[in-house]
Amino acid sequence: MKKLLTIAIATGFGFSMQAHADRLSTELIKPIEPATITEPEKVELGKKLWFDPRLSMSGFISCNSCHNLSTGGSDNLPTSIGHNWQQGPINSPTVLNSSLSVAQFWDGRAANLQEQAGGPIANPMEMASSHVLAVDVINSIPQYREEFAKVYGSADVTIDNITDAIAVFEETLVTPNSRFDQWLKGDDKAITEQELAGYNTFKSIGCVACHNGPAAGGTSFQRMGVVEPYQTSNPAEGRAAVTGKDADRFTFKVPTLRNVELTYPYFHDGAYWTLEEATDVMARLQLGRKLDEQEIDNVVAFLKTLTGDQPTFTMPILPPSTNDTPRPQPFGIKQ
Amino acid sequence: MKKLLTIAIATGFGFSMQAHADRLSTELIKPIEPATITEPEKVELGKKLWFDPRLSMSGFISCNSCHNLSTGGSDNLPTSIGHNWQQGPINSPTVLNSSLSVAQFWDGRAANLQEQAGGPIANPMEMASSHVLAVDVINSIPQYREEFAKVYGSADVTIDNITDAIAVFEETLVTPNSRFDQWLKGDDKAITEQELAGYNTFKSIGCVACHNGPAAGGTSFQRMGVVEPYQTSNPAEGRAAVTGKDADRFTFKVPTLRNVELTYPYFHDGAYWTLEEATDVMARLQLGRKLDEQEIDNVVAFLKTLTGDQPTFTMPILPPSTNDTPRPQPFGIKQ
Repeated sequence: MKKLLTIAIATGFGFSMQAHADRLSTELIKPIEPATITEPEKVELGKKLWFDPRLSMSGFISCNSCHNLSTGGSDNLPTSIGHNWQQGPINSPTVLNSSLSVAQFWDGRAANLQEQAGGPIANPMEMASSHVLAVDVINSIPQYREEFAKVYGSADVTIDNITDAIAVFEETLVTPNSRFDQWLKGDDKAITEQELAGYNTFKSIGCVACHNGPAAGGTSFQRMGVVEPYQTSNPAEGRAAVTGKDADRFTFKVPTLRNVELTYPYFHDGAYWTLEEATDVMARLQLGRKLDEQEIDNVVAFLKTLTGDQPTFTMPILPPSTNDTPRPQPFGIKQ
Repeated sequence: MKKLLTIAIATGFGFSMQAHADRLSTELIKPIEPATITEPEKVELGKKLWFDPRLSMSGFISCNSCHNLSTGGSDNLPTSIGHNWQQGPINSPTVLNSSLSVAQFWDGRAANLQEQAGGPIANPMEMASSHVLAVDVINSIPQYREEFAKVYGSADVTIDNITDAIAVFEETLVTPNSRFDQWLKGDDKAITEQELAGYNTFKSIGCVACHNGPAAGGTSFQRMGVVEPYQTSNPAEGRAAVTGKDADRFTFKVPTLRNVELTYPYFHDGAYWTLEEATDVMARLQLGRKLDEQEIDNVVAFLKTLTGDQPTFTMPILPPSTNDTPRPQPFGIKQ
């Protein structure tokens, strides 16, 4: 890298472009491209469903409750708050750039975003509704039926169409144009010397072996604690829960580092709140490297260059319930 | 009214305008005017705080949780869900057009929106934070400090400035341009014959005696159950809790009827889910009138003409916490 840059500076603009083009092909982290919206009405419908608390039994929890688009697509809690204030088992991953992951959930048990979207709705610890109830609620609202008719050709709402619309909205939630991506695309001034030094450390000690691709993660499953075991009271087994293989115990999907500045606290148990701590722990446990303070500061400075343009959009106005809409049950069936 | 309209039709446009101008002066419900924004940066800051769950102890509940701007500025629950899933004591009133109320809360215990805004933050049943903690949290975030410095001339955030910014944002949450307001301003076609019939019933039986002004309510305190007592298990005492006067027992601020189509369930205990029921109960208990089905349908049709343009805005992106930000305590102090 250093050599390429030196050549670029030495030989002027033409060659410099060459060096920049090389970044795109040689660097293992790739830029995030803006979303291409081909079905705007489906996206709008999905956005409404994303924000609709009526998909939960309580009428209080929406997708956005735990994947808050005002706060990096996460809830900034160690583990989430679910129905009846139940404590969730694992840290809510950010929804931002989740379309770039090889699979969904920490253990990859959902193949794609649509499959994932059905999970929390029916999970008794999360939204605590059921697919039948969610469909009944949406079907009872004429404006939703109209929109589904327009988008899916039928006013009879199905759970597959609900989760498809949510997934299509989620696909738009990418964060292009981070300073790091500007640098990847050739703008030398987009990141500082310290940030570049941090990136070089990030590469040289091996972080990039797992945190790669456009999301700087999400491309593979890896054991948490390769060199040294990770101490946690969190009982999550990781990928073994999906594959049944003992070899997959404590193996998790590598989280994205995109917008990591916004998605504290860190790791599947949400046990670490600062990027300094998280960097130190990862270097030691995964790579057997004890970084000094300066190195950690540099890596953290680099990590903050991965914050991209956050999705901005108009908050949706939801169509009102009707007299026939099943009522929320925030405090049990007694009401 | 009918006479005026007849004259207007009979005598042509000039006279018709006269009749319309009369509506503005003679009708007791007045149109809602769009918000005039004189301090856009303060509004933007207030909007961020409105959506910021870090004003709650759990880091999960924001102003928008119970006054959801996607759902009529309310949570559509009988009573709200607070910290640790505690059941709130009273129905969350809509924030929409709340600046037009004579006072805030059902019992009017806050003189204005700023005073109101400080309540839920520190209420152990609601956001369960404290003013000291809320200030510490916001003060720990450099981007917030910068915005406060710009708007209030000092980067040292105070609870008064936090609640002032929230209140100034809330003042923008008005809903002009309802079909009823279009009719008030002279567009005869803006409401149907049935809706007009409903409005005439609404006036002739006396609803408008309390539901008047631009918010069609919020101008006075009235006893719930004037002719017949209101049966409820809700222990709220009403205005007596503020004045200490026995005469004020079960006296509440008259709720706005603006956007009432969106703000179900109804009354201070949120016990009624449909406008038909609510209309029937009000007519009987407050006015001693038993409306027939047609009359109720007409009044409900009229009430739905009070739905105005909902505030639309870009969802704010919140500045991230820092290593120094007090951490949320969603599940008690143990973490």
